[in-house]
Amino acid sequence: MSTGNAGKFVGVGVGPGDPELITLKAIRALAEADVVAHFAKAGSASHARATAAQHLRPQVTELPLLYPVTTELPKCSDGYRDALRGFYDQAAASIAAHLDAGRMVAVICEGDPLFYGSYMHLHARLAPRFPVEIIAGVTGMSGCWSAAGTPMAQGDDIFTVLPATLPENELARRFSQTNAAVVIKVGRHLPKVRRALKTSGRLPHAIYVERGTMADAKMTPLTAKPDDDAPYFAIVLVPGWEERP
Amino acid sequence: MSTGNAGKFVGVGVGPGDPELITLKAIRALAEADVVAHFAKAGSASHARATAAQHLRPQVTELPLLYPVTTELPKCSDGYRDALRGFYDQAAASIAAHLDAGRMVAVICEGDPLFYGSYMHLHARLAPRFPVEIIAGVTGMSGCWSAAGTPMAQGDDIFTVLPATLPENELARRFSQTNAAVVIKVGRHLPKVRRALKTSGRLPHAIYVERGTMADAKMTPLTAKPDDDAPYFAIVLVPGWEERP
Repeated sequence: MSTGNAGKFVGVGVGPGDPELITLKAIRALAEADVVAHFAKAGSASHARATAAQHLRPQVTELPLLYPVTTELPKCSDGYRDALRGFYDQAAASIAAHLDAGRMVAVICEGDPLFYGSYMHLHARLAPRFPVEIIAGVTGMSGCWSAAGTPMAQGDDIFTVLPATLPENELARRFSQTNAAVVIKVGRHLPKVRRALKTSGRLPHAIYVERGTMADAKMTPLTAKPDDDAPYFAIVLVPGWEERP
Repeated sequence: MSTGNAGKFVGVGVGPGDPELITLKAIRALAEADVVAHFAKAGSASHARATAAQHLRPQVTELPLLYPVTTELPKCSDGYRDALRGFYDQAAASIAAHLDAGRMVAVICEGDPLFYGSYMHLHARLAPRFPVEIIAGVTGMSGCWSAAGTPMAQGDDIFTVLPATLPENELARRFSQTNAAVVIKVGRHLPKVRRALKTSGRLPHAIYVERGTMADAKMTPLTAKPDDDAPYFAIVLVPGWEERP
C-alpha cells in the first residue's frame, strides 16, 4: 500500500547495450530520479549503468546493488539461494528507505525490466507497497537479431525462448515444434545446443551471437563457430518465417 | 549487391505506440532520412507514423505504402496471397528507385522491425541488393506487460509466443508446456483461447490487454473479460516466474 508521501519506484529499461537504443521515456525517468540504482558485480562495472551514464544528473544519488560473491556455492544449493534472497531483501530495503522519504528511485535495467532481469526481484518486493512504473526497453534478443539482420518471426509463426540449461532431448523436441527460437544463456552448453539443433534439422540456419549490440559484437552461422568456450550471455538465433518470398 | 552510389535502406522500429518509447537511434535515422516510408490501410492513419510524427523533418519526402483492399478475398486464398505479394513487390520497387538514386530510405515499423512486422517483406526483397540497417525497437508485447506491471519470464523460464489461430487442443498443450506465454492476434479467437487456458490450468493468471501502450489501454484479468468482440491486435499474457518470492 502506498502512502501519500511515498516516492515512486521506476524500473527503467535501457536496452541491449548500444547507448542509442535507449528510449526518450527512459532518459526522462533518469533525469527526474532522485536516486539511481543499478545491479553490478563487486569489482566490475555495470553494463546497464554504462549504457545510461550520459543521462544521469551529475549530482544524482547513486545506489549500486552489488551481487554477493557466491562462487564458492553450487548454483542450485540452498546456500546460494539464501544468499541471493538475502541480497534482494537488503537491496529492496535500501530502496524502500528512499521511497519512504518521498524520493523517486529509478533502477537501471539492461534490456526490458520484466523479461529475464534481476529488477523483478525488487519489483516483487516493492510493488505491493509503493507506486511503481515500468518503462519497457529493447530486449537483448531484439538487439541481436537486428544486428544480425535476421528476420525472426512472421504471420502465424510460433516463437520460443529456450534456456540452454534444458536437457538435450527436450531442446531437440522444442526446436522441432517451433517456427523460431532464441536460446539464451548458452555458455558451456554450446555443444549440447548444437547437437539438439542437428537432431531437429534446424542447425543449418542457426546463428551464434556474442555481445549482440556492442562495438565488438560477434555474429556467425553456428556451423562456423567452434565448440570452444561461449560466454554465458551468448545466444543462438533460430530464424522462423520459412515461407519468405 | 550494393553499388557505390546506392542509398541506405533502414528499418526503424518506433516501439509499441507510446511516442516516448522511441529510441534515440530511431530518432536520428528519421532525422537523417531523405525518404520516410510507412505502411497504412487506405483511408486510415498509420499508427507507426503517428508515433514517429514529431521526429520527421518538415520537408521530408513521405512514401505511404497502402495495403491493397482485399476484404472481398478469403485470407488463405491464392488471390489474397497474390494481391499481397504484388503489393510488396510494388512497394519494394518504389523504395528501390529512391535507393538507386542514392537516397536514404527509412521505413517506420511499429514495435521491432524483425518481429512479426510487414517490414520484413521489404527486407527480404531489398537486403540482397542494397545496404541495410535495422534499428531494434520496443516490441508491442513488452509495452503491454510493462503497462500491466506483470513480470513475464525469469531465470530458466521457457517463453512462448502463440498465434491465436492455432487449434484449441494445440494451444492447450502448449500452454501446459511453457512457463510464460503471449497469445497474439486474439480477435475473434478469444473464446477458444480462454477454453485452452482453462484446460491447461493457466486461466487464473491470464491477463487480457487491448491497445497496450495507448492512452486508452485496457488491461484486465482475462477471467473478468467477457467473450465479446476482441480487436485483432488484442493480446493475452500468461505470466511465468511461478516461484517468485
